[in-house]
Amino acid sequence: MTALSSILNQLHTVTTGPIRGSHKIYSSPKDFPDMAVPFREIPLAASSGEAPVRVYDTSGPYTDPDITINITKGLTPLRSSWLKKRQFQNETSPRMVKPEDNSFVSEDQLIPACPAPHTVLTGEGAKLITQYEFAKAGLITEEMIYVAHRENLGRAQTGAVTRNGEGIPSFITPEFVRDEIAAGRAIIPANINHPELEPVIIGKNFLVKINANIGNSAITSSVADEIDKMVWAIRWGADTIMDLSTGRNIHNIRDWLIRNAPVPVGTVPLYQALEKVEGDPFRLTWELFRDTLIEQAEQGVDYFTIHAGVRLHHVPLTAKRVTGIVSRGGSIMASWCLHHHRESFLYEHFDEICDIMRRYDVSFSLGDGLRPGSIADANDEAQFAELETLGELTTVAHERGCQVMIEGPGHVPMDKIKYNMEKQQKECGEAPFYTLGPLTTDIAPGYDHITSAIGAAMIGWFGTAMLCYVTPKEHLGLPDRHDVKVGVITYRIAAHAADLAKGHPSAKLRDDALSRARFDFRWEDQFHLALDPDTAYAYHDETLPKEKHKTV
Amino acid sequence: MTALSSILNQLHTVTTGPIRGSHKIYSSPKDFPDMAVPFREIPLAASSGEAPVRVYDTSGPYTDPDITINITKGLTPLRSSWLKKRQFQNETSPRMVKPEDNSFVSEDQLIPACPAPHTVLTGEGAKLITQYEFAKAGLITEEMIYVAHRENLGRAQTGAVTRNGEGIPSFITPEFVRDEIAAGRAIIPANINHPELEPVIIGKNFLVKINANIGNSAITSSVADEIDKMVWAIRWGADTIMDLSTGRNIHNIRDWLIRNAPVPVGTVPLYQALEKVEGDPFRLTWELFRDTLIEQAEQGVDYFTIHAGVRLHHVPLTAKRVTGIVSRGGSIMASWCLHHHRESFLYEHFDEICDIMRRYDVSFSLGDGLRPGSIADANDEAQFAELETLGELTTVAHERGCQVMIEGPGHVPMDKIKYNMEKQQKECGEAPFYTLGPLTTDIAPGYDHITSAIGAAMIGWFGTAMLCYVTPKEHLGLPDRHDVKVGVITYRIAAHAADLAKGHPSAKLRDDALSRARFDFRWEDQFHLALDPDTAYAYHDETLPKEKHKTV
Repeated sequence: MTALSSILNQLHTVTTGPIRGSHKIYSSPKDFPDMAVPFREIPLAASSGEAPVRVYDTSGPYTDPDITINITKGLTPLRSSWLKKRQFQNETSPRMVKPEDNSFVSEDQLIPACPAPHTVLTGEGAKLITQYEFAKAGLITEEMIYVAHRENLGRAQTGAVTRNGEGIPSFITPEFVRDEIAAGRAIIPANINHPELEPVIIGKNFLVKINANIGNSAITSSVADEIDKMVWAIRWGADTIMDLSTGRNIHNIRDWLIRNAPVPVGTVPLYQALEKVEGDPFRLTWELFRDTLIEQAEQGVDYFTIHAGVRLHHVPLTAKRVTGIVSRGGSIMASWCLHHHRESFLYEHFDEICDIMRRYDVSFSLGDGLRPGSIADANDEAQFAELETLGELTTVAHERGCQVMIEGPGHVPMDKIKYNMEKQQKECGEAPFYTLGPLTTDIAPGYDHITSAIGAAMIGWFGTAMLCYVTPKEHLGLPDRHDVKVGVITYRIAAHAADLAKGHPSAKLRDDALSRARFDFRWEDQFHLALDPDTAYAYHDETLPKEKHKTV
Repeated sequence: MTALSSILNQLHTVTTGPIRGSHKIYSSPKDFPDMAVPFREIPLAASSGEAPVRVYDTSGPYTDPDITINITKGLTPLRSSWLKKRQFQNETSPRMVKPEDNSFVSEDQLIPACPAPHTVLTGEGAKLITQYEFAKAGLITEEMIYVAHRENLGRAQTGAVTRNGEGIPSFITPEFVRDEIAAGRAIIPANINHPELEPVIIGKNFLVKINANIGNSAITSSVADEIDKMVWAIRWGADTIMDLSTGRNIHNIRDWLIRNAPVPVGTVPLYQALEKVEGDPFRLTWELFRDTLIEQAEQGVDYFTIHAGVRLHHVPLTAKRVTGIVSRGGSIMASWCLHHHRESFLYEHFDEICDIMRRYDVSFSLGDGLRPGSIADANDEAQFAELETLGELTTVAHERGCQVMIEGPGHVPMDKIKYNMEKQQKECGEAPFYTLGPLTTDIAPGYDHITSAIGAAMIGWFGTAMLCYVTPKEHLGLPDRHDVKVGVITYRIAAHAADLAKGHPSAKLRDDALSRARFDFRWEDQFHLALDPDTAYAYHDETLPKEKHKTV
C-alpha cells in the first residue's frame, strides 16, 4: 500500500489562497443567520467611488485563508445539521469495499482510502428523500434556500419580483426554486452522503452552470493529480465535476475526491463496472452494475450518467453514420446488446435503478450514448430515437421520486442547435438539458474548446442548464492542469454570454463594472473583475510592464 | 538610413515552406489555362481509398517550395497582364514621398523603401475602372473568373446549378460573381496598383472571410516583424490584412508589405494622417487627408476604412454611454468635430473621397466610429444613427462607381446580434458587412478571441461577409506572433462554422473527411486535415508520444 505520507507529500500542488484581487465573503439568507453562502468580493479603486463587486463563487474553502485545508480530514460537512432532521438512518451494514472496486490493484500499488470520517446515510424508511420529493410535497429544504441566495448573489429583495413571461425572475425566492424543482425543470444534485457539498441548482431559469471532467486513466494516474485538478477546476469556476476515472484505485481516489469536494460530483458508474470485468463489455451484468451504483451512492456521488436510452433496436440506426457511436458509455452498451442480442440491462432494470438512486438522492444524468460524433451525424434518427427514450425514462424517474437531467450532444452545426433544445424540452418535459458543447465544426482539433464554446453559448442561451466543458486536448490526449483551466474559463465565457442573452438580472453587473473600469483606465480593477485576473495581468505586463501603465 | 542588408538580416523569421501534410497546387478555370488559382491539397492515407482533400489557400507563394521568396523583389505581379488591357495609364507624375509620410523620422532611423519595382497606374481616362463598374456594365473581369474558381475550390461544374432561395448556389459561376458585385452585395478589393494580389471576394453569398490586423506602433516596430506577421497570418488563413501602423516609417513599411502581400491590404488612412500632424487631431485638414489617400492608393492599398459616418450631431448621442467612443478613428473625428464645431471633413468631402478611391479601385470599408465598446452600449442610438449615415454614404459611393463594405461592432450580447445584421442589410442595401467580433461579454480580457468568436460565428451565419479577428491580447497589449496565429485560427473556426450553418456546398467536405479519419483512427490524416496540424500533432504527442499511437 502506498503510504499516506507519500500521498501527502504529493499534495503540495493543491492550490489555496484567494484569487488575485478578491476575497471570500459569506452572506446569510434572510431569517437564516447560521447559513453561510460563499461569494467572492472584488473591491474597486477608491477613485471609482464604486461598491465592491460580488460574484458567484464555486471554489469552496480552498480560497478562504481563514480555513486550514487538510485533505486527510476532508471538508467541513456543512449539510449535516440539515440532513439530521430528515429521518435518514445511519446505514448499519454499509457495503464493504471489494478488491474489484480498485480494479484488483496489488497491495503495494493500493492507494489508501481517505481517512476522513464518513458515516453512510440511507433514505430507507424516510418518507421524503429527494429534493424532488420535498418540492412536490410543498416543502422548502435548506438546499433550496441556499441556492436561492446564491443565485441572487446575496442581494436582498427590493420591491416586488418581476418576471418577463417565462424568463428569469428579477429575484429568486426559495419558493420559486421549490416550484422549479417540483416541475422537473431544475435539480439540486445533492447526495445525502455528500454533506460537504455547497448546493447548486441546475435549471434553465437559473444561472447557466458548467461541468469539468477530470479522472485518472490507465496511462497517468495519481491521487494528488486528481485532487489538484478538481481544486484547480473549481477555483476557475467549474460548478460541478465529473470523475471519469478508468484506471486503478478508482474507488479510493473517488473517496478522496468526494470528501474534499464542495461541488456536486458526477460519475459514469458503467466505467467502473467495466473495470471490474477487466474491460470486457460482454461480461457486464445487472448485478455487477447494481452493486457499483450502491458502492458509489454510499460514497456520496451526486449524479450518475446512466445510458439507459441506448436500446437494442437503436443500434442499427447508427450503421450508416460517418462516426458511428462515439460515446464511451453508448458504445459499451451497444456492444453488450449486440453480443447478447438482448435489450439493455439498464433499460430493463430502470425501475430498480431509480429506487437505488432515490434512496440517496443521486440525480439522474440520462446519458446520450448515441450522440453525434461529427457534423455529418448531427440530428439524425439514432440521436433522436434515443432522446425519445430518454423522455420516457424521465417520466419513470420522476414518478419514482428522482431528480433528472438529460445529456445532449456533441457535434452540431449552428443551424441545427436550436432544434436540439426544442426537441429535448418537448420530449423530456422541460427536464434540465446538460450538453457537451456542441462542437460547431470538426476541423479544428487542438481548438475544440473554441469550436464547442460557440455551440455551448448558443445552446445555453436557448435554455441548456449546464454545459460540459471541452478542453484543447479533446480528441487528442488527456488534459493537463493548463488545459483544465483553459477549458473552464472558456466555458465560463459561454455560460456568462448565455446568462447575458437570457437577461439574467445579476449577470450584466459585472460586465458593466469592468467596462467602466476599462473606460477609466483603472487597469487593476479591470484585471480583478476578469474571469482570469492572472492571465489578464500577465498579458498586459508583456508589452507594458511598467507599473504606471496599470494605474494611468 | 537603416541599411537594406540589416533589414534582410532581420528577415530570417519569414516563414516559408508547405503547411504540414499538404502541398500547394494550382488549378485553372475552364477556358483560362493561363490563370493559376492556388489551393492546398491534403493527401490521405492509402488505406482510406480516398482522394486528396483540396482546401482554400490564402498563404500565397510563401508555401510553394518551387518559388524563391526574395522580399526585396516583391511577389510576381500576376494581375499585370489583366490590368494592361483596361486602358489604365502609367501615372506620369506620381506623388513624391514626403518627410511626414514616415513621420519625420531622422535619416539614421529611416527604413528604406522596398526596392521592388512599382509603376503607379491611374484609372484617369479609363471608362471603367472598378470591379463594380465592370460588373454594372455586364462585363466579367479576370478577377471575377479567378474568385469564382477559388470559391468552388477548383471543382468543375457537374449538372445544373441549384440554389435554395437566396442561399449560396451549388456552383459559383463568374456570371454569379458579376451579378453579386453589380448588386453591391459583394466586392473584390483589388487596387489597380496591387498587381501582386490573388483576388478574393467578400459577400454574404460566398465563403466567409477573415481579416487579421497587424501594424507597428510607437512601442514596438520593425519591418521584419511586420512582414513576418503578415506572412504568418496568411499562412494560417487570413484572407485580408489591415496595416494599422501608428509609429515611424509607416510609408516605407507599408511599401514592403504591399509588394509582398498576396492578399488584399486594408488601412485606416486617418491613422497616418494623424501621425503627420504629430498626433494632434485638431490640426487635421481635408487637404492633408486627401494627400494621404492618394499616397496610399498609389502604393496599392486595396481598401480604406473611412469614418465618414461620424457626424457632428452624432457625438452628443454618446454622452451617456458606459464606454463612450472606443473606435480610434471615431474618437479622432469626434474630437475634431467638437473642437472646430464643424461637420466632419470626411462627410463634407465624401464625393471627392469617392472619386479618388474610384481612380484606383480602392474599396470602401465604411468605418463604424461609434461602435459600442461594451455590452451596455450595444445597439444604442449613437451606433444606429451612424449606421443610417453609412447607408446614405453607400448609395453615394455606388453612384460614383466604388465598391463598398460596411464595418460593424464591436461588443454585442448574443440576443442583440441578429438585429445588427438585419439593420445593416436594410440600411446599406445589402452591402457586405465586415464586423469586429462581436464580443459577447466584457468579462474575459485575455480570452477575447473566444468571447468574440462566439459572436463572429453567429453573425457570420446571419450573413456577415468578413470577420475581423480579435487576438487574446485585445484590450491588454500588442499581439505577438503566437497571438496572431491563435487569433487567425480562432476566426477560421468562426468563419467555417458559419459556412457550415449557411450550407456552403464545399464547406462540409473537410469536416466529413476529418471525421472519417477520426473514426478510422487515421491520426496523421486527422492532423493534416486540421486547421492547425502542428498543434494537433503536438497535443497528441504530449500524452501519446509513440509513433504507433498515430497509426493505429
